This record gives sequence, C-alpha cells and structure tokens, in this order.
Amino acid sequence: MIGSGILSHHAVCQRGKALSKEKDNSKSVGVVQTQTVRIKLPAEGLELKKEGVLRELTVAYETYGTLSPARDNVVNICHALTGDAHVAGCHGSLGEKPGWWDEMVGPGKGIDTNYYFAVCSNILGGCSGTTGPSSINPATGKPYGAEFPEITVSDIVLVQRLLLEALGIDRLAAVVGGSLGGMQALEWAIRYPDKVDRCICVAAGASLSTQALAFDIVARDAILSDPNWFAGSYYNEAVKPAWGLSHARKIGHITYLSPEIMQKKFGREKVAQSDSDTKEHRFEVESYLDYQGKKLVDRFDANSYVRITEAMDAFDLVEEYGCLEKAFENVKSKFLVIGLSSDWLFPPEQSVNLANALHRAGKHVSCCILEAPHGHDAFLVEIKNMSETVHAFLPWVQTEQKSPLSDSNDAPDAQEQERYRLVVESVRNGTRVLDLGCGNGELLSLLRQKKGTVGLGVDIDLKNVIEVIDRGHDVFQADLDDGLAIIPDGFFDYAILSSALQEVKRPRDVLREMARVANECIITFPNFGNWRNRLILGIVGRMPKSSILPHEWYDTPNIHLTTLKDFIMLCQKEGIKVLDTVCIPGDSIFDRILVAVGLRNLGAEKVMVRIARGSIGAGKKGEGR
Amino acid sequence: MIGSGILSHHAVCQRGKALSKEKDNSKSVGVVQTQTVRIKLPAEGLELKKEGVLRELTVAYETYGTLSPARDNVVNICHALTGDAHVAGCHGSLGEKPGWWDEMVGPGKGIDTNYYFAVCSNILGGCSGTTGPSSINPATGKPYGAEFPEITVSDIVLVQRLLLEALGIDRLAAVVGGSLGGMQALEWAIRYPDKVDRCICVAAGASLSTQALAFDIVARDAILSDPNWFAGSYYNEAVKPAWGLSHARKIGHITYLSPEIMQKKFGREKVAQSDSDTKEHRFEVESYLDYQGKKLVDRFDANSYVRITEAMDAFDLVEEYGCLEKAFENVKSKFLVIGLSSDWLFPPEQSVNLANALHRAGKHVSCCILEAPHGHDAFLVEIKNMSETVHAFLPWVQTEQKSPLSDSNDAPDAQEQERYRLVVESVRNGTRVLDLGCGNGELLSLLRQKKGTVGLGVDIDLKNVIEVIDRGHDVFQADLDDGLAIIPDGFFDYAILSSALQEVKRPRDVLREMARVANECIITFPNFGNWRNRLILGIVGRMPKSSILPHEWYDTPNIHLTTLKDFIMLCQKEGIKVLDTVCIPGDSIFDRILVAVGLRNLGAEKVMVRIARGSIGAGKKGEGR
Repeated sequence: MIGSGILSHHAVCQRGKALSKEKDNSKSVGVVQTQTVRIKLPAEGLELKKEGVLRELTVAYETYGTLSPARDNVVNICHALTGDAHVAGCHGSLGEKPGWWDEMVGPGKGIDTNYYFAVCSNILGGCSGTTGPSSINPATGKPYGAEFPEITVSDIVLVQRLLLEALGIDRLAAVVGGSLGGMQALEWAIRYPDKVDRCICVAAGASLSTQALAFDIVARDAILSDPNWFAGSYYNEAVKPAWGLSHARKIGHITYLSPEIMQKKFGREKVAQSDSDTKEHRFEVESYLDYQGKKLVDRFDANSYVRITEAMDAFDLVEEYGCLEKAFENVKSKFLVIGLSSDWLFPPEQSVNLANALHRAGKHVSCCILEAPHGHDAFLVEIKNMSETVHAFLPWVQTEQKSPLSDSNDAPDAQEQERYRLVVESVRNGTRVLDLGCGNGELLSLLRQKKGTVGLGVDIDLKNVIEVIDRGHDVFQADLDDGLAIIPDGFFDYAILSSALQEVKRPRDVLREMARVANECIITFPNFGNWRNRLILGIVGRMPKSSILPHEWYDTPNIHLTTLKDFIMLCQKEGIKVLDTVCIPGDSIFDRILVAVGLRNLGAEKVMVRIARGSIGAGKKGEGR
Repeated sequence: MIGSGILSHHAVCQRGKALSKEKDNSKSVGVVQTQTVRIKLPAEGLELKKEGVLRELTVAYETYGTLSPARDNVVNICHALTGDAHVAGCHGSLGEKPGWWDEMVGPGKGIDTNYYFAVCSNILGGCSGTTGPSSINPATGKPYGAEFPEITVSDIVLVQRLLLEALGIDRLAAVVGGSLGGMQALEWAIRYPDKVDRCICVAAGASLSTQALAFDIVARDAILSDPNWFAGSYYNEAVKPAWGLSHARKIGHITYLSPEIMQKKFGREKVAQSDSDTKEHRFEVESYLDYQGKKLVDRFDANSYVRITEAMDAFDLVEEYGCLEKAFENVKSKFLVIGLSSDWLFPPEQSVNLANALHRAGKHVSCCILEAPHGHDAFLVEIKNMSETVHAFLPWVQTEQKSPLSDSNDAPDAQEQERYRLVVESVRNGTRVLDLGCGNGELLSLLRQKKGTVGLGVDIDLKNVIEVIDRGHDVFQADLDDGLAIIPDGFFDYAILSSALQEVKRPRDVLREMARVANECIITFPNFGNWRNRLILGIVGRMPKSSILPHEWYDTPNIHLTTLKDFIMLCQKEGIKVLDTVCIPGDSIFDRILVAVGLRNLGAEKVMVRIARGSIGAGKKGEGR
C-alpha cells in the first residue's frame, strides 16, 4: 500500500546528503508561471457536497520539478486560507518575492524538486485563478457573489483531484498541507485512500477549536456587516467591503502570531501618525495590523474569505464519521503529523490527537511537535526543522536497505551492541514492537532487518525523531512520563525500555503502562545493587559514580535508581510476571564471578528483565543479594 | 507605614473562623442602593491628566458594611472595563441577580463586611451614574459624546479619591481590583503612597500585553467604523452604534475565557436558528457571543467603551516611570498580587513581573498564581481560593500575636522543632531571611518572634501560601527550580532551605542562587551517607528507606540525594565557604556515637550546613567517612 520507489538506493543516499540545511537562494526552482486549465465537467455539471452545482470549472496551478515517466513522484501541496498556487520560485525575475513556501519546495529542500514533481493549485472558492465567487456565473453572465454555493473541504479536494486527472496523474506520492491545507491533506487521505501514499499534515486539526471557530465567526460577521457588502454583490459597485475584509484579516493576524512573538516584534512601541489623525501616536501593532488588512484587501475577495472560512469552520471529522478512528478506518497512507509548539490557533494537542487516532486505527503515523516560537505562522516562516522532517519522511525507499549498524555516525559501543543482541534474541519474528526512548532508531532497524518486526519508536529528541523517520519507522516525539494512554491494551507484542526507567518521573506508572500495552516488556536498567555502588556508598561514603552512572548527584538525569532486587519486588507487588532476567556484567572480572555464582544483584552492572502482565512470578535465585 | 489595627486579637481570631468556605446566600450584604454624589470641584474645574477639564463631576457608588469610628476600615473596590458600582447584594429584593463580586464581598467573605467598610464607585468615563461621555456637558447642554476628554487610569483613581474625601474618608485600609480594576489599585498605591495600607491586584499587569492591546484596537475600530457611530454624537439619533459595540464585546468575550473552558462550554455544538436565517444551524458559541454582545448594548455606552479601553491601553507604568522598580519606588502599601493560571488576556507572568519588581524595589509583597481554568473571567467566577487569599491578607493585626508553635493544626514534630531551634540559633537579630520551601510559615514566625527578622517565604502549595500570608509574612508561590533570578545579589542576610535540596531538579543551581542572594545559607538535608543507608544498600542490596527517607524508589520526591561528604565537595568545587556543619543524628544510639567520634558522614541522619559564598572552605574532619 505504500508506493515502492523508483529511485535507486544510491539516488536516495545522495538525496539525503543534498538536503540544504540553510536558506540558499541558489536552490530556488527559478522563474515559474501560474497556469490555468478549464476542467471538462460532465453534462450535469459538478455536484458539490452540500448544495449547488458548478457548470464550469477553471483551476489555476503551478508545478515544480519533473514528472517521472511512471508519474509516481507527484506531491500535491494544499494551500491555506488566503494562499494561492504560487508556492515556490518567482513570477517575474529571480530576486522578487518568492512563493509562499519557497523554503520548503525546491532542489535539495524538504520537498525536493530534484526528485519530486510538486503541484499546487488555487483552491475552489478562491480568487487567484480557480473558480470562486468572483468568477462569472455562466447562468447569469455576472460574478457569482453570494450566489456561489457553499463549499466544503471535500469539494476543494475533489477539484484538486480533477486537476491532477487532467494532468494525467492518477496517484500521489504525497499530499502536504498546513493549516486549512492540513485539513485538505487529511481529506485527501480519507477520501482517496488508494491514491495517496503519504500524507503530511502540518499545524492543523480534525476541526477548528471552539476558540478558533469563534474568531472566524466574529471576523466573518465584520464582512457581512460591512455597509459595502451589498449582500455579496459588490463587484459592480464603486466600493467594496474593504473595511470588513481588512478587519477580518486583522483578527486573523492576531491569531497567527504567538503572544510572545507579538510582544517581541511590536511591544508597546509607537509610531508617528502619517495622516491627519488627531492623535499624535499610535501603537506599532496597530500599524502592522492595518498594513496586513490593507494588503489582503488588495489581493483577496471578501466573498472568497466568507466561503472558505465557512468550509474551514464546517470541517469536522468527528461530526462526519462519529469518531476519528472511524474517519481514519480505511486510509492507507503513511502519515506525518507536525504540530507547532506555540501555535494557539491550531494548538499542538490537536496534532497529537490526530496522530493518536491514526495510531489507534492501526495506521502508520509519525508525530512531532516542533519548537517554533512564531505561533501558527511558524508553518510558513520557521522552516528548517520542518523541512528536515518532511525530507526524512518523503523518500520512497525504506531504510531496510541501510545497514543499521554501519550507516550511522553514532555507531553503538560494545555494551550497546550486546544489549541489541540480547533484545533481538528475545523478540519473535514478525511481531509488533514499541521502543520507548528509541534514540536514533538503530534497534528498531535491526529488529526489522533480523526479525521482520513492525515498530513504533518514542523519543523526545527531534534529531532522533528525524533519524527514526528517515529510517522509515513510525515514531512519536513524546515524553515517556506523559503516558501511553493512546495505545490500546495489548496492542504491541513487545515494549522495550532501555536505560530510561531511572530517568522518568514516575517509573511505576511507566512500568504499568508498558505491561498494559504489550504482551511482553524488555527493560534494561543500571543495577544500583552492583558491588561498585555498594562499595562507593558503603565504604567511601559518597554517591556512586561509574561508567554507566557517570553523572554527579547534583546533575544526573537518573532520578529513580533501583537495584535488581527492588525492581523484582516491585514487579511482584504489581502482579507483573518476571519471565527472565539477564545480567549484563561490567568489564571487571568480579562482575562475572559474582554473576556466575548466582550473586546477580551484586555482580550485574546492568540488567535486562523480561516481564509480562499476569500472575506473580518469582525472581530467580541470587536476586536476594 | 502599615496601618495598625483597631481590631482586638480576639476579634481577628473570630474573623479567621468566620470565613465562609462555601457559597452561602445567607452571607449576602442584603438589599443595597446605588447612591450618587455631586463632587464639589474648584472653580477652575477638574483638570485631567492628558487633556481637558471637567466642570461638573457626579459619582455613583455603593457601600457595604459599617465605617468604623476611626474611619480606618475602608476598602476601595475598583471595577473592570464594563463594571459598575454594584459589587454585592441586590438592588430590588434578595434573590435577584446580585452584584458582580458578591461572592467576594459580604459578611464572612474575602472582603469581610463584618469588619470592613467597602466602597465601590462607577469609574470616570463610565455610563452607570458617574460622569462620562453620555453625561450632559454643562457647556453645551448636550451629551459630551466624543467631546468627552481622553481619560487615564490616573484620572479614574483621582475621582475615586475625591469621592472618598466627600465621604469623609482620608485613607484606605486596602484598595482591591481585578483586570482594569487591578491597574487602578496599582495606580492608587503609586499615586497616594501615604493613603493606602494594602493593595490587592488581581489578574492585571503594569500594562496590556501587545496581544491584548491588538484586540482592544481591533475591537474599538469596530465601534468607530460603525455606520451609526456618527463621530460619537449618536445620542439624539434613532439608532446607536450597536453593531460596533456588540462586536467589540464579542472579541472581548473570546479573550475572557480560556480556550479549554470555551471548548468545554460550547465545543462545536449547534443550535437551531430561531430567526429566518437561511442557514439551518449555527454554532452554540456564536449564539453565546451574540447574547453577550446584545446584553452589553442594552446596558453600556459605546463612547464609554472607547474612552475606557483607551485609558486601559495607555496605562503603562514602564513608559511612565522608566521601569517598574522606579514606578514602585515610593509606594508604602503592602501588596498582594494574584494571577490566574489560565488567563491569557493578563497572563500570570504579568502578575509575577509586578510582584518581582515590587520585591526588587524593597516592598512588602506576596504573590500567588491561582489554579483557575476559566481564564480571565476566573476573577469574577472562580472565587473560593481568591477569597481565602484576600481574607488572609486583609486582617490588620499581624500574627506576631499568634504563638507560632501552638496555633497551628500541624504542630511540628520533635525533629522539626530541633531543626527550628538550630536555625533560630544561627540567625542574628533583625536580619532579612529568605525561607525556601517555607511550608506554612512556622519557622518565619518563630524567627520574627525570637529574632525580629523580616522574611520572605517561597512555597509551591497554595494552602501553605495562604497560611503564610495569614501570618503576615511576604510569600511567593513558586517552584524553587524556577530560580531566584528576581532577587538581587546579597539581598538577604540568610537563605534557608530545609529538606528540599534533594527534591529540586537542579540542586547545584539552587545552591548557587542561594549563595548569590544571601550572605549566609542554612541548608538541611537527609544524609544519604548515614550508616543505615549504607547497610541497606551494601548488605541487603536494596534502595534505602528510613524514617526520613520513607519513600519507595519508584515513588520518591527525593530525586537528587547526596551525602554530607558529596555536599561538602560540591561546595568546595563551587567556591562556597562551609561555615559550619551540624549533624542531626537519628533516634539510634549508633548515630550519636558515630557523630561523637567524628564519623559524621556515617552518623548523621540529617545535616544542617551553614555556607556562604566566598573562598573555598574546608569541610570539618570526619566528613571523610
């Protein structure tokens, strides 16, 4: 169901290296043109989802890169509320203001036009070349105005599909969008499950939050109440509902910026009035909002603003399908869901909710929340991490073809390799594995290679998350202490937690959750009962430090250390079965001797314990010391 | 400078008990009436701060409780943007909708009318009885309209002062206000430093944030752009700028609720349309906002909305005084600053900033951030904790009169008493003390009683914070890991940290900060080097538990345990002088013997260490074991 690639492994490796880490104008797609195509409709016209029929349909679009002979390298980019088809490159000459996602789309960029053929079209209902309220209604010979039918995100996506068909494209390597564009990307994956290999949803949600809805309602009301609105038939009037549209845009712009960035950008600075206003000064933020309002009035149509925000307000996957899991039931795409830390229009929790539901529906999904201080606008302006994440997600070729233990720059040390070996040995073929604190995904790759497992990684570090995505695994960027509540009981065959038990805030809760979601858990932790630690505290009277506990007491991430014995006793108390304990001795010969004579709690420097929920199991002899 | 009380100690104790913990209608102030008074102005009229002169001034006000013979029990309550003088009780008969802060003001409530005489007046520029734009301009015989001069928070406060003078009141036991009312409270304390004993500032800031400013600007623009605005002279027109005022109110109401509460209250629920609108349904949140808008139009004047929001927008203590410390330089009030956790119009950080600046300016200030999910509105609707905090802050009589070791319900145990004794012994008379993790303030009270110290407590628990406030100490509700950056170098003579070092996330940073802000630090911590712990780990092979380390490894708040020896070595490394170490042995005779023979790291169950920044000091002999 996930498109197999046409690119050779070699090409993919090169592509990996080609990702431009910094903004680089030489990486522009160059001078581009918006094209329009008249879509051939059936005789009865195009029936829209809610109401109405369109008799004519024109779509404006741009493309970047080269369509592969197999026509299987197409990325459909969906724009947001007031966007247009001009994503990348420049219209006139190089050097003028480039398209709205120029830093994401181009050779060596997130959506790499050396390999992909990117298409973006102005959405239905828009005013930048695609049929919308300002287009001529063939029935009347006048602009539709408010007669333009109510549209839905579903209609918007249908029109994109018709355009692609007209271009001879049947399926998408990926669909990508942010904000309202993210809603379109979701709709694509739901509506055309067989046509979309990958779906990237940035800074969006399954519906608007109540607060976002309220802002839209109030903003739209300003347009509808503008004395120059003329019930939407203002196209032949001398004046347009400019005040209302500008006002709506101002409200929008407040919600696009995080309060912190707004404070930083404008503070309470004042600017001198340029006009004859009676007040001496006004706030810079007022002048910024005025500018943004005016700019939109110059390029956008009020009717389009009304129709498109209505479509956005009405988009609600829960209302439509009953619940999100149901909405995603039939999707076949692999998903990347990206939230932005300071976005308060589409708060990152909405992205997490989407990803959780996809996961519960049994789909391939990765999720990360990017640190992005700019608020919702970050999806347009804070590109670097987003671009790397998208780039990692997009390659067609799975990283099975990478050698998991040789490709990485951080080759694991001998003890880590030993741990990997032990884990791999313990895991049955073709099982489902959850790797908590998965690091760069080495172990997941090794398991996939040796045992054909399917895995989900969890890690808090974005660099790791990107690497795991690049290896082709599903991964959630998350804090282990936030819990595994999204994962159904017994969803995984194995849950792995390596050297992280002592770092979490609530180790017992993590343990309980692991035992709930997986049939078997494999936990590795440093054994505080090792003789070194006992000696250092017991004789020297200091807090133990060692090669595997290298931190000073005041600076250690290891906040809940335990001994093998304590761990086993906790399992017993919790009714968790201990299936097996493997002691990993340190370098010293003492370790090995102690373990050999059964004094495991004394000898083991690290321990790997296999546990499972169920009746109380007994620890092995020797844990008693 | 802080008013000495007229109430007997006995009365105060009764008052403490009288605080009604639950909403109780029998605690209403009963039926009240708004009164108006014509203020006698000098012949030249009342000159306003920015521009213009008022020739006539009427003020509408209400009072609750009884003015004491000494006229020193007056609490001036300042209302918010669209509030009025009707704070508590009912106008018609009991049972009708009570005043806007009825749960805060009344017998046994936060502002206890059994003891205080509360006054609230409609603010200058308002439209509920006090002179404002809808009042008759004596110069023209018509309503002022937009001719009404621009007002400031300073003018608003001046008018309140004139009213109080007219009532024969010269000074305030307290001034209280939330939101714009909080700004007025600050202005009172700054403008009339000798007239205000206590100042309570709730959910406010030294100025609006840029975001809040932006919302005000956009909202006001809706009024000024309403076709029925008529440049503010709409009083004789058939129509009023109702759309603009309603629209402004809707934007306001979105900002008054937290997104979570909005989601919870309305979600994406729909309601049937009652009118002939073509759409079948609309969102419940739209209907809510419409209702709120309409309600305000029925009772409020658009010109007042414009003038008062302008005053709020212009309020900026930093702009006026250069910096907040300078603004607060001459205040003499004791401050209570309350922020609300989910308030995004006046985010809690603004309250913290106010409190920090007051502290740096050397003023008495307590600060707490109440858990309040309702957003900014919480200052009106989530009263319980706020009422208790205000109640604790308001009593005139300092709790020196309480016996610190007998009044409390949680009498400290013997070891705690021993610790108190040791700390008290170490502290010089009349010094400044910072107590980190101060609990209920016992130790601060004891130090005040025995050594005449002035103290600041820091604690995260609200119950503790309220108790510390009630004892008359300054206290900040804060997390020790958030740092002491607000406190200048060497600000305190002593910093005390008791049994919390091992609970913080970054003990070294806390230590450094303590050594920076205080000349001497007194730190007590459990000694992990105690022989019990060594035995339990060394021989039994388990994580140590004891009476002072009673938690299981997986469930302990003690995340950075240390030994006496490790602690001393850290001090040496950090260039911190160790002045003294006092070993607190446990119950066992072994402890005492070990300590007696100099094996302090073995014998001490707890340690109290006195340290100071400066040259490296040597640990005492015996720490070596």
